[in-house]
Amino acid sequence: MLEELKREVYEANMELSKRNLVVYTWGNVSGFDSDAGLVAIKPSGISYDDLKAEDIVLVDFDCNVVEGELNPSSDTKTHIELYKAFNEVKGIVHTHSPWATSFAQAGIGIKPFGTTHADYFWGEIPCTRLMEENETYDYERSTGKLIVETFEGRGPLEIPAVLVNEHGPFTWGKTPAEAIYHAVVLEEVAKMAFRTQLLRRNQDTESMQQIILDKHFLRKHGKNAYYGQQKESNID
Amino acid sequence: MLEELKREVYEANMELSKRNLVVYTWGNVSGFDSDAGLVAIKPSGISYDDLKAEDIVLVDFDCNVVEGELNPSSDTKTHIELYKAFNEVKGIVHTHSPWATSFAQAGIGIKPFGTTHADYFWGEIPCTRLMEENETYDYERSTGKLIVETFEGRGPLEIPAVLVNEHGPFTWGKTPAEAIYHAVVLEEVAKMAFRTQLLRRNQDTESMQQIILDKHFLRKHGKNAYYGQQKESNID
Amino acid sequence: MLEELKREVYEANMELSKRNLVVYTWGNVSGFDSDAGLVAIKPSGISYDDLKAEDIVLVDFDCNVVEGELNPSSDTKTHIELYKAFNEVKGIVHTHSPWATSFAQAGIGIKPFGTTHADYFWGEIPCTRLMEENETYDYERSTGKLIVETFEGRGPLEIPAVLVNEHGPFTWGKTPAEAIYHAVVLEEVAKMAFRTQLLRRNQDTESMQQIILDKHFLRKHGKNAYYGQQKESNID
Amino acid sequence: MLEELKREVYEANMELSKRNLVVYTWGNVSGFDSDAGLVAIKPSGISYDDLKAEDIVLVDFDCNVVEGELNPSSDTKTHIELYKAFNEVKGIVHTHSPWATSFAQAGIGIKPFGTTHADYFWGEIPCTRLMEENETYDYERSTGKLIVETFEGRGPLEIPAVLVNEHGPFTWGKTPAEAIYHAVVLEEVAKMAFRTQLLRRNQDTESMQQIILDKHFLRKHGKNAYYGQQKESNID
Repeated sequence: MLEELKREVYEANMELSKRNLVVYTWGNVSGFDSDAGLVAIKPSGISYDDLKAEDIVLVDFDCNVVEGELNPSSDTKTHIELYKAFNEVKGIVHTHSPWATSFAQAGIGIKPFGTTHADYFWGEIPCTRLMEENETYDYERSTGKLIVETFEGRGPLEIPAVLVNEHGPFTWGKTPAEAIYHAVVLEEVAKMAFRTQLLRRNQDTESMQQIILDKHFLRKHGKNAYYGQQKESNID
Repeated sequence: MLEELKREVYEANMELSKRNLVVYTWGNVSGFDSDAGLVAIKPSGISYDDLKAEDIVLVDFDCNVVEGELNPSSDTKTHIELYKAFNEVKGIVHTHSPWATSFAQAGIGIKPFGTTHADYFWGEIPCTRLMEENETYDYERSTGKLIVETFEGRGPLEIPAVLVNEHGPFTWGKTPAEAIYHAVVLEEVAKMAFRTQLLRRNQDTESMQQIILDKHFLRKHGKNAYYGQQKESNID
Repeated sequence: MLEELKREVYEANMELSKRNLVVYTWGNVSGFDSDAGLVAIKPSGISYDDLKAEDIVLVDFDCNVVEGELNPSSDTKTHIELYKAFNEVKGIVHTHSPWATSFAQAGIGIKPFGTTHADYFWGEIPCTRLMEENETYDYERSTGKLIVETFEGRGPLEIPAVLVNEHGPFTWGKTPAEAIYHAVVLEEVAKMAFRTQLLRRNQDTESMQQIILDKHFLRKHGKNAYYGQQKESNID
Repeated sequence: MLEELKREVYEANMELSKRNLVVYTWGNVSGFDSDAGLVAIKPSGISYDDLKAEDIVLVDFDCNVVEGELNPSSDTKTHIELYKAFNEVKGIVHTHSPWATSFAQAGIGIKPFGTTHADYFWGEIPCTRLMEENETYDYERSTGKLIVETFEGRGPLEIPAVLVNEHGPFTWGKTPAEAIYHAVVLEEVAKMAFRTQLLRRNQDTESMQQIILDKHFLRKHGKNAYYGQQKESNID
């Protein structure tokens, strides 16, 4: 059943590993077929070295396994809640990618600081509120509901990523491949946002001495340059 | 003797190198056979490029070499103290992996900030107290005793890692392979904890201008997008 | 037409990818032939894996495509403004390389802190002022004009790089290859400047205990060293 | 002449590149033969891809080229000053390795914070004072003299590294290979010292909620674990 979707989901899972977004088994990708009403998802706890296309599990919206020998990802219910609420979304990725996870652990969203962010996310990438005790009983489903709550009044494809507080990122897209693409971009954007914030708080330090600046520039460039094998200015 | 344990310890040592947890000879792995009462450990100062399975040294709890041509790791007595005190532990890893070592050098434990930590460590990864002068005479054994003291009242498999103050991390597990696994996880968790702490202390910076945010998002997405080769919205 | 320039521009684009300065399609390189008055530039939204030398597009100073099947980079007008204003410049590179982009997002220039900077950039690498609303209507051309304004009174080859505020870096040179070279150097210089600033603001911490310093140094060096396989002092 | 020394110096230069300590041509290694009174050193501005063993230049203490077709490194006089003053030193390395260079640019030494440092450097790795204007006329020789001044009263093999203010590191050893080894260790030690300093200044942040800590640990470990394919506690 749904061999093409399963292959797409398998390949997206392998791409996670290739893009260095996961360590060991820390991540999962799913895809959704809206006609069949079925989710294809990585099995739980299987390493990327061992994963095969036929291991991908098919589940329905009640989390019943429809096809597959293995248990689906322990985060399956989170994925299902998102597919239920976000109509255009057909692929979801969860990782513990370190830059995005650091923001999630700090409990703060990623503000837009530049065009790299703006090219993909039309505003702040939000961080969910803390989960309350009574929500932890159906933990994975509650995680999904918290994400949906966070996007009330926003289009999920305008900001195709979220940070789950004390946990890590989820990204999504119109296909599993697009969800991976957004996971890669999110990690880059988080890295730059971290550094932007630190730079703004650690400014006002002194430049080097002008005389050493001149010495080194002119050692390599201009008429009296003496670096390298040629007398003329050169670039290395 | 104990060929299987020696092979396991050899492979775990090589995995340290493959996982980029060690530079030159900065690390060692041991395994323990409780029936024989013997520890298999890396020889001292041998580089991972040169290490062979038959180089693994067998020592008893008095640190006598029972088999092997080479001197055992200079940290052997530390390993022995842990095997004596932690019954379920059958594999131990010591590295100078840079993120965990930075916490050890700062003298502070790694607090749990998110689920990546919580999946493996049921609480703060503790840092030992400073060693006192009289403890330095039997330095490596004292290091082991300090770790054991730090875990008084805690189950070592609930938090299978420690930071030795002014030194670096030790991790352990039910096998040498599991100890390595925990060393890899510790390094990831330390990296994220570092960034989480810095993010919380470097917040409150301004977002970019809304007009540039809009410009870039709409240059790529929606009806009037003009980035790329197609008129329709696209992801790259 | 201009086959050699197109090959040079193609190779410079591939070098961007090889040097890890771009993720996906985030970057573009152009070259300028002043006799023909034509710019050779990467097509928009084409991934580096798929790019071929014959895909390079030739445009004139009015941004008309003179040769090529594909749309030129969406940043083409920015490149054209620079070639118009900077006579000696014959190659331009735009990236979102993460260290330089973090400074651009923070809105601060990169001060010269050491000789690595001084060897290539004769002063602070400036950050442009924020773009004003009325400038956003012809966005890419305005970006170029802002860069030119920033260099009023400065020789562009004395500081062959700029940070566009809320966006990212542009670098240039006498050839496309030299522009790439400067993009690589800029990223290294930005990385070191970031760390320099943070170090200056995070000083005054305590050294380790002298007794442990002595213990470890003397465990490896001198007459009583006992680390490794030999009794004499050794380096590992 | 001195074919073996030249090969050693060639191989040490290539090791610099392999260990990722240099970008382009930013580094040089030399070796010293005290019987011949000659220094073997990398030629200036030659890339590591093009370097051949026969390119290594031999110079005497007056910086006259005794053998070789190419100009010696522009830093040759710095190396000579060190060989003159430091009797046991027979190999010297200069790089712009980014972590060590960041300390040099900040103008602060690297304090000993842990045993990784203590295993190789018996105290703070010092940073030279700023160069004065009158010293810049014989710039490279003055750099060497400044380093020697910084080590007055210290044994250069007890701390085989220095940070030249506003510039970058030099390391040394009893052979060129040992000098490289110290360059690699210095970079690791600088990286950890940076993070140690930042951690100490960015503490006191809150742990995660206990209930989520429990939830995730117990989802994977113990009787009621449900992560993965097996009911028993597992490690991944």
